[in-house]
Amino acid sequence: MAPRTLQTGTALLKLSSNFKIEVNGVPHPPQDLLDAVLRTTMRLESDKLQRLIVGRGSSDQPKLMDAPSLAKLILALTPTAGSVRPIAEEATKAIGLRTESYSLIVPNSNSGVATILSNSTLGLFRGLTTFEQLWYDDASGTTYTYQAPVTISNDSPAYPYRGFMLDTARNFFPVADIKRTLDAMSMVKMSQFHWHVVDSQSFPLIVPEFPELARNGAYSSQEIYSAADVQDVVNYAGARGIDVLVEIDTPGHTAAISASHPEHVACAQSVPWASFANEPPAGQLRLASSATANFTTNLITSIARTLPSTMFSTGGDELNVNCYTQDAQTQADLKQSGRTLEQALDAFTQSTHGALKTLGKTPVVWEEMALVHNVTLSNETIVMVWISSQNAAAVAAKKLRLVHAPSDYFYLDCGAGEWIGNDPTGNSWCDPFKSWQKAYTFDPLANLTAAEVPFVLGGQQLLWTEQSSAQNLDSIVWPRAAVSAEVRTCDLLDLCCFFSSLPSVGLLDWSYSSRWK
Amino acid sequence: MAPRTLQTGTALLKLSSNFKIEVNGVPHPPQDLLDAVLRTTMRLESDKLQRLIVGRGSSDQPKLMDAPSLAKLILALTPTAGSVRPIAEEATKAIGLRTESYSLIVPNSNSGVATILSNSTLGLFRGLTTFEQLWYDDASGTTYTYQAPVTISNDSPAYPYRGFMLDTARNFFPVADIKRTLDAMSMVKMSQFHWHVVDSQSFPLIVPEFPELARNGAYSSQEIYSAADVQDVVNYAGARGIDVLVEIDTPGHTAAISASHPEHVACAQSVPWASFANEPPAGQLRLASSATANFTTNLITSIARTLPSTMFSTGGDELNVNCYTQDAQTQADLKQSGRTLEQALDAFTQSTHGALKTLGKTPVVWEEMALVHNVTLSNETIVMVWISSQNAAAVAAKKLRLVHAPSDYFYLDCGAGEWIGNDPTGNSWCDPFKSWQKAYTFDPLANLTAAEVPFVLGGQQLLWTEQSSAQNLDSIVWPRAAVSAEVRTCDLLDLCCFFSSLPSVGLLDWSYSSRWK
Repeated sequence: MAPRTLQTGTALLKLSSNFKIEVNGVPHPPQDLLDAVLRTTMRLESDKLQRLIVGRGSSDQPKLMDAPSLAKLILALTPTAGSVRPIAEEATKAIGLRTESYSLIVPNSNSGVATILSNSTLGLFRGLTTFEQLWYDDASGTTYTYQAPVTISNDSPAYPYRGFMLDTARNFFPVADIKRTLDAMSMVKMSQFHWHVVDSQSFPLIVPEFPELARNGAYSSQEIYSAADVQDVVNYAGARGIDVLVEIDTPGHTAAISASHPEHVACAQSVPWASFANEPPAGQLRLASSATANFTTNLITSIARTLPSTMFSTGGDELNVNCYTQDAQTQADLKQSGRTLEQALDAFTQSTHGALKTLGKTPVVWEEMALVHNVTLSNETIVMVWISSQNAAAVAAKKLRLVHAPSDYFYLDCGAGEWIGNDPTGNSWCDPFKSWQKAYTFDPLANLTAAEVPFVLGGQQLLWTEQSSAQNLDSIVWPRAAVSAEVRTCDLLDLCCFFSSLPSVGLLDWSYSSRWK
Repeated sequence: MAPRTLQTGTALLKLSSNFKIEVNGVPHPPQDLLDAVLRTTMRLESDKLQRLIVGRGSSDQPKLMDAPSLAKLILALTPTAGSVRPIAEEATKAIGLRTESYSLIVPNSNSGVATILSNSTLGLFRGLTTFEQLWYDDASGTTYTYQAPVTISNDSPAYPYRGFMLDTARNFFPVADIKRTLDAMSMVKMSQFHWHVVDSQSFPLIVPEFPELARNGAYSSQEIYSAADVQDVVNYAGARGIDVLVEIDTPGHTAAISASHPEHVACAQSVPWASFANEPPAGQLRLASSATANFTTNLITSIARTLPSTMFSTGGDELNVNCYTQDAQTQADLKQSGRTLEQALDAFTQSTHGALKTLGKTPVVWEEMALVHNVTLSNETIVMVWISSQNAAAVAAKKLRLVHAPSDYFYLDCGAGEWIGNDPTGNSWCDPFKSWQKAYTFDPLANLTAAEVPFVLGGQQLLWTEQSSAQNLDSIVWPRAAVSAEVRTCDLLDLCCFFSSLPSVGLLDWSYSSRWK
């Protein structure tokens, strides 16, 4: 995990027993920055990770007594920094407009002071994260580094979108589990939590204007996210440098809506499910109905306007045409409007995306909306490439911004056997398991021309949760999900990684998970 | 999970708020039976599992008010039962001599008393386990069954060996994690914990006569099993109806011994490792050396004599011939004794197995010792078939007893990617992942003649832990490891399952794990 520039020495440096972190030169420091300083201070005390080498660094011990001690870390904004904003505000700026860069200097003398310098509180927070990971404990509890002095000049991410997607609809995940996941994400400097909150299986999201959706569509009255829960998650993420991209997948994957609004859902629960959907239960919004388009647009507006993120996903994957062919009402709606199904999908999309634009939000869609369907997407639309990594080039060729989410590299749920259908010897559709080694081989710029490179916003690993729950969340997600935070484009000496973060204690080391458990 | 005979009704029956379990007609009931009764009583109170159907059984609620209540469960030995022994003593009898059968009657009237009847305390314990799993809670905390009355006559296992193997050498597992695993095993009536305690990667077992082995061979002084730890695990297992089969894998898989006894280990840490072992580090006991044979025999004796089990495994898998070809000392030893390598292996095995027989123990070996090598195995030897399920028939044809442990069905670690070598796109050697559905298709009597059927003692699922630790133990093992506890030979109406255990809340239901977490 090499930052863009990194110079390390070979000297031992202890953390002084009265080590302190001071925020200097930041007028009225925002509370979330002070909280982050407190968390780092506490973790430096509580984290007992020893060096991950044979002997756990015991050979350092005799030399530690005489090593210099670091008494202070100072965080300061650069003179050119603008007005001071909370980390959460910096982290939820439009993608591409966030300032995450920082410089870090750790001296190796008793009188020295370590410094983190940045143009933004978000950059200071990224620097704090790096600083926190420089240190090990020895057996007697001394906290030290063996690489002093450390100099990092203007470390910054190669891509702004470094994400993780969690599906909370196939199985429900309590807020505490989401927060623990956000903690881990922030430790590897991820910037985006993609919350696939609802799907055909359940609708756990309470939308105050549409309370019937969760009341009838959640697995139970306990397995829901209240409006306060959502704000809690968003605030928790923001304070940790993470923007929350919420997805309401439409018009497919919406069977759960039929529990409260059967009038808006075609082929709800239709059988055999395989004729109507990629997995049961079937059900898709009646995209040709103006009442349904209005309902969907109002729903998306109601949710999106409560969220700080400038992005919102309307989904758009896996539309089943047969569902609409068999649906008498959709056929009548199409006939009445004189539209083809594709034209109706376009109108439906203009309606939801238009509402997002009114709110100042950027629409995000799955790749089918760009590559399979005849939908007009505005220039700023962001496309998630999931079916195959091979499809990224086609999206870029359409001059649309993209996020890599390829099932052939980044799907964390693959390889756990076939859970659908009746073939006990079957494997999962995206077999085999995507190991961290495999994810590391991903090249975010493969098959792109130089002119297309700017369309790549970054990437994310994803967990679809048909076979996961809170009970195996940590072990199936980590450390693998950290890979996409630092995938490189070229070779090991190349610097264009998604993000560059010290130190070598990283995801290559499975014990790393002990850092955040 | 149908028992051999099961009759259920359709009536609701509540557990009375003053419900009690009484041990009757068991003179001086052993403490582990009383403890088991207490655990069942506590779990009936603490387990809040609701019916695993839509609505979680809420439709039962209006009818529950008028349902009869059960006030008492009586455990009694049958008049023909012999002297009363602790569960642990019954569970550690020689395989095939254990009495696990029981009968259970649950009435459906207010005045009725439920009874469990058996010839042994172990049978009473199995019945208690079944009884415990009959009950659900409703939302208001009422504990009830919807299948009263319940009658099970003489439920008993089809196979005595229903096991799970854990490798505690590739990664170390604290005793608490092993105990939690034993709890889960007992809930699905497993009878054998196969403890692959040491291997080439580490030697965490403290053997009082050979303290240097763990001192130099364990990962750290914290990652060890003291003699007291071993007795703790054995006693904990025994009280839960589980016999502990300890394995000291020999002569291969012994590199960790070279840290304290380099004189006994050939090709220790030799490179390239692939020429000397199936995974690094290489290292095998110098089987042609009489000093090494004596050392190994003394080591095995020292461990085996402290254990109640009548079985002990000397391993015997994956011998690498080149390691011995390249080892000057082994070549000299062979020359001096005038033996071939196979003859030396035979003599080595006679030495260790002879010592086990002196202790009254039955040797257990991996399949290579029966199928690949020219080793004389006594009739009572038990062979574990792991390389392929296809090899079971060859073992039975040699009239040797066998335990199914096939990598193509029962290996829980398969399908997590290749961790060895330098191929980032490689899959695990036993890819794909063995889903519970796949394990269920296993036929323990495939390709066996009727005469060979009695050689099948049972089966077990296994976790090799190169890619597992305490952090993902539960999620990688359960509920899959429960499958081999009830694999059937024929069709769903066939009764010869490994074990038959009520109720339908079983491993097919992933939520089952909430029962023991």
